[in-house]
Amino acid sequence: MKVSTFATPAGVADPAHSVQESYAVVIDVLRATSTIITALHNGARSVIPVSDVPEAIALTRSLDRDSVLLCGERQGVRVSGFDLGNSPPEFTSERVAGRTLVMTTTNGTRAILAVREARVAAVGGIVNATAVARRAAESGLPLTLLMAGTRNRFSLDDALAAGAILDALPSGAEPDDLGHVCRRLYRENRKDPAAALEQCSHYHDLMALGFGEDIAYCMSRDVLDTVPRFHSDHIIAG
Amino acid sequence: MKVSTFATPAGVADPAHSVQESYAVVIDVLRATSTIITALHNGARSVIPVSDVPEAIALTRSLDRDSVLLCGERQGVRVSGFDLGNSPPEFTSERVAGRTLVMTTTNGTRAILAVREARVAAVGGIVNATAVARRAAESGLPLTLLMAGTRNRFSLDDALAAGAILDALPSGAEPDDLGHVCRRLYRENRKDPAAALEQCSHYHDLMALGFGEDIAYCMSRDVLDTVPRFHSDHIIAG
Repeated sequence: MKVSTFATPAGVADPAHSVQESYAVVIDVLRATSTIITALHNGARSVIPVSDVPEAIALTRSLDRDSVLLCGERQGVRVSGFDLGNSPPEFTSERVAGRTLVMTTTNGTRAILAVREARVAAVGGIVNATAVARRAAESGLPLTLLMAGTRNRFSLDDALAAGAILDALPSGAEPDDLGHVCRRLYRENRKDPAAALEQCSHYHDLMALGFGEDIAYCMSRDVLDTVPRFHSDHIIAG
Repeated sequence: MKVSTFATPAGVADPAHSVQESYAVVIDVLRATSTIITALHNGARSVIPVSDVPEAIALTRSLDRDSVLLCGERQGVRVSGFDLGNSPPEFTSERVAGRTLVMTTTNGTRAILAVREARVAAVGGIVNATAVARRAAESGLPLTLLMAGTRNRFSLDDALAAGAILDALPSGAEPDDLGHVCRRLYRENRKDPAAALEQCSHYHDLMALGFGEDIAYCMSRDVLDTVPRFHSDHIIAG
């Protein structure tokens, strides 16, 4: 099983690589994809990712307001007037069960939309690493790991999550150079992935905003077995 | 000293980063930048990097043929009819001293041309890592490390070379996330960087072509103190 690993959506500008023919996993571990996995695990009907705040508001208005929650952040903080931000603990069963979530985040959305054309487009994190690896292996397709990155650059948090998924793949997996590096990084830090984040700029941004508990949760391996995937323009529990 | 690290030229599509205002170092350690450092160390007058083979031939015809050598590779091998390929040991003083080298390589050229607009655009490898780090620190400018990558992707060989330069920087250096990863990768493998290349696809391409000695040379730290840099469209000994 060939694995292609990309540190940012811009990095997929690779003529030799076809996301379309792969099982693609998008990773924005702090925090968008961890939040989406949690929301769907807790019974949200679907998540609709959109690029910007006006689009999110317009879409929400066009839907049945009672069954929709408007969610997302800018600069890490819940958008003013939105129902929920981008913190996994906000997305409890009480809040989200049976609801459609319209969601926009700074980094995650571009990456999430970039995988949509894949044969299977799944949503990954450390919280569901083993479940994602199992589904990917069962698909029989080549695997694409697409990290969101931070400010269009390689981000250590996403690299750890990619490494956790690679760590959980069966032994026949054939990672590319970046996949090897991510797996090694995860294995060296598996006892305490959060400690490795001392060298991660995005970690420091979130700590300054008081999101330490979110980070600890997002770094917890295999606490969920939900593997969200795209079905048309919605993300649903897989 | 801020350090921005990019795994491929495409990765520099980062609106927040300005190569122009930095001391930029291009790295294509296997083998283009190692070859250019070696050629200028051995007395070549200058190296003119060009994108493709027809352009290289046309430029060479327009120059004084006696003082020019036409150099470069495609698929790792010297282009038919060229004077030299892309193997550092070919670029001896006997062959290159006093000559202008017109050079085209598969991966390196795009990256080399991408740094040309920087305040200082230098050429780095493991063979001159400490000399590059010293010059960069003396410049007082932020540092950009731009790797060529392989087939538009992150390449472990270039990451080791970026890590060697980061390892040699003074203690006040502030690498970004990718810089931290490259430095760590180099430090973990400093005794035998070539051994780390077992997980590098480009390494296996070159080994299959019989370039094992080139690889050993390109992985040798600080054997040269020449730091080539762009002067207009020529690269000269710094």
